[in-house]
Amino acid sequence: MAPELDPSVLDIRFAAAKAASRRLATATSDEKDAVLRALGAGLREQGAAVIAANEQDLAAGRANGLSDGLLDRLRLDERRVEALATAAEDIVDLPDPVGEVVRGSTLPNGIRIEQLRVPLGVVGAIYEARPNVTVDIAALAIKSGNAVVLRGGSAAEHSNRALLGVLRGALEAAGFPADAVQTVDDFGRDGARALMQARGHVDVLIPRGSAGLIRAVVEEATVPVIETGAGVVHMFLDASAREDWAVELVHNAKVQRPSVCNALETLLVHRDAAERLLPAVVDRLVEAGVTVHGDERVRAIRPDATPIEPDEWATEHLSLDLSVGIVDSLDDALEHIRRYSTKHTEAIVTADVENAERFLAEVDAAAVLVNASTRFTDGAEFGFGAEVGISTQKLHARGPMGLPELTSTKWLVRGRGHVRG
Amino acid sequence: MAPELDPSVLDIRFAAAKAASRRLATATSDEKDAVLRALGAGLREQGAAVIAANEQDLAAGRANGLSDGLLDRLRLDERRVEALATAAEDIVDLPDPVGEVVRGSTLPNGIRIEQLRVPLGVVGAIYEARPNVTVDIAALAIKSGNAVVLRGGSAAEHSNRALLGVLRGALEAAGFPADAVQTVDDFGRDGARALMQARGHVDVLIPRGSAGLIRAVVEEATVPVIETGAGVVHMFLDASAREDWAVELVHNAKVQRPSVCNALETLLVHRDAAERLLPAVVDRLVEAGVTVHGDERVRAIRPDATPIEPDEWATEHLSLDLSVGIVDSLDDALEHIRRYSTKHTEAIVTADVENAERFLAEVDAAAVLVNASTRFTDGAEFGFGAEVGISTQKLHARGPMGLPELTSTKWLVRGRGHVRG
Repeated sequence: MAPELDPSVLDIRFAAAKAASRRLATATSDEKDAVLRALGAGLREQGAAVIAANEQDLAAGRANGLSDGLLDRLRLDERRVEALATAAEDIVDLPDPVGEVVRGSTLPNGIRIEQLRVPLGVVGAIYEARPNVTVDIAALAIKSGNAVVLRGGSAAEHSNRALLGVLRGALEAAGFPADAVQTVDDFGRDGARALMQARGHVDVLIPRGSAGLIRAVVEEATVPVIETGAGVVHMFLDASAREDWAVELVHNAKVQRPSVCNALETLLVHRDAAERLLPAVVDRLVEAGVTVHGDERVRAIRPDATPIEPDEWATEHLSLDLSVGIVDSLDDALEHIRRYSTKHTEAIVTADVENAERFLAEVDAAAVLVNASTRFTDGAEFGFGAEVGISTQKLHARGPMGLPELTSTKWLVRGRGHVRG
Repeated sequence: MAPELDPSVLDIRFAAAKAASRRLATATSDEKDAVLRALGAGLREQGAAVIAANEQDLAAGRANGLSDGLLDRLRLDERRVEALATAAEDIVDLPDPVGEVVRGSTLPNGIRIEQLRVPLGVVGAIYEARPNVTVDIAALAIKSGNAVVLRGGSAAEHSNRALLGVLRGALEAAGFPADAVQTVDDFGRDGARALMQARGHVDVLIPRGSAGLIRAVVEEATVPVIETGAGVVHMFLDASAREDWAVELVHNAKVQRPSVCNALETLLVHRDAAERLLPAVVDRLVEAGVTVHGDERVRAIRPDATPIEPDEWATEHLSLDLSVGIVDSLDDALEHIRRYSTKHTEAIVTADVENAERFLAEVDAAAVLVNASTRFTDGAEFGFGAEVGISTQKLHARGPMGLPELTSTKWLVRGRGHVRG
């Protein structure tokens, strides 16, 4: 049970996070890397205690009837703790974005201006039942010079408390204030609400999780939010699409990892290609265990397809299910995507250069792909080395976010007594 | 009086703006420049009608007891309409940010990725009693490929309606849908509320005006907001500051245009320099008509200073008033600034390179200046050519915003049948 909220306690924590963020903001890369190394070592040393805490959460989860999928996401074992330690240490090798000169010039009057990358300050993270996010987001925040306030949800309460101890120990071991990593979990939903409303204390809020969680944060927060999001991801097989590419791209996009946001959810097929492509595409899917939910025109070609429900076009299955429809033209495909896209990732398979360029120009999404699997919208694939999440909003960051997306900038202006005339 | 709100009317307008934004998003620079030229011509042709409409607003403003300052901001005369026309035409010469390749690479597997600058989509603007903003923001939005929904406030209702007509006419004359510029003004406060909540229709909201207006928008909006903001701007005269620079920089920062957000509001003086600098600095200010509000230590040196009220440290005077205090050290100056800064512009006058660098590194603001007037935090001074506003938030844009700040990006990904392994 969450205790009665004494708001002053949270105010004190937020203020402590802000103060710690100032220390981190001026830290060198070497100093911040020392925290990440101490974190890796700490996770290995205290792995048994973390796993024991996680077992409490797993037991509670089983008692509360959590699904196997959720229990799996919640689980920390020796291998997963080792992976967390390695991931934290791998961040050492990434370039530190802080201090980068983004632009600069000497004005006609001789004043020198530089736009410098600086940390955001205090990053708030709200997520559910994934204790690995606790370490991931804190490690990325520290490398980019930010303090962090975490809300990890009640299902992972014991795991997160244990991980928080490791994180705070690593900060102290490297000479930083432990207050650079904070939690509001002990205040339950009131803590989450306080975090969302902590304007002036918390500089940005990153929700990670279900569409419902993200919507709730967007609606309740006064702190600026970076939406990372749901993906109702489409692939359009144009009239000219190569059969071998169509078969392999659809299969890979749907099957390679169906539970993630860049997995394919809806396949649209040009009517002129449907008879040619659908049989082989669907055979390959069915062979992989995919349930095809088809509209009437699909079912005319593949009567074994499940009839699609109208609301399924808006559904993010995150499972071996695929919505499939036939459209009359590229325009109709674009219209369908406009209507149902969550603006994450959209793809076309085509041999026609004009249609490829139209699709790239007209589709409004974080990533638009031609003749490639939608699974490539990913920070690691893009070469960012680590991923904070995939932003589906248009402000600040769009698409896979790396360390630079956890920074802001400031202008440094140097004059010699210059006044404005 | 605002009519009863029929929400479907606003939904239709927002949807029409979205549809028009798609046309603008793929327009060439030449096509968009044609709108700006038509806008300049239209303002000149219909100037008399705009001024007549403005006179209705002025008469209503006088009847409602608007201050002379507000009436002046509201006023459009021939000279000001001509200035609006010229400003719109000047935007023709600015580089179009849309289509710029921000980054790009070929991945190890041969996939090519490019991050391309694209319009935000639909920009919402909320402002008060400044009809010039109607034309400014619409022209900048059009150049950057965005549609715009305006909420200009009841005090400028007739002026804005006339200007909206000119804007929509210019769009049509250049072959674009007039719906790319919309208003919610005829729905009064309900219209403003609908605009702030138009998630999915409106991509970003830019409030311009008083601190109260901006706070209200931030609290009520579910659409992402770019805060442009109030400036409680500080200048710190370090122990080593040159007297001639101190006198001229303080004078210029306070007096050159006191009503704007980058004007100086608080002067902090190192105790070791107070006896040396304050007399000449204050003499120059008093000569220019400035009222100095000093703390006790300032008044020990300048008994003619008005005693400062404690809440004045947080006040944005926007007038010929200046808060002045003496501090014991650079650390105390930094602490004062941390407490009262609105994170807009902060400056130090110093001869000490170490203190200059500490100030630049530790002050958290959009612009941090050494030995230069705070009036330089400005898009035109920075060479941006036009200014959307000065962002005081950390996400997306910080400091003076030009056309690129009205854009987002998307990733274009081109493969040859690539699947993820």
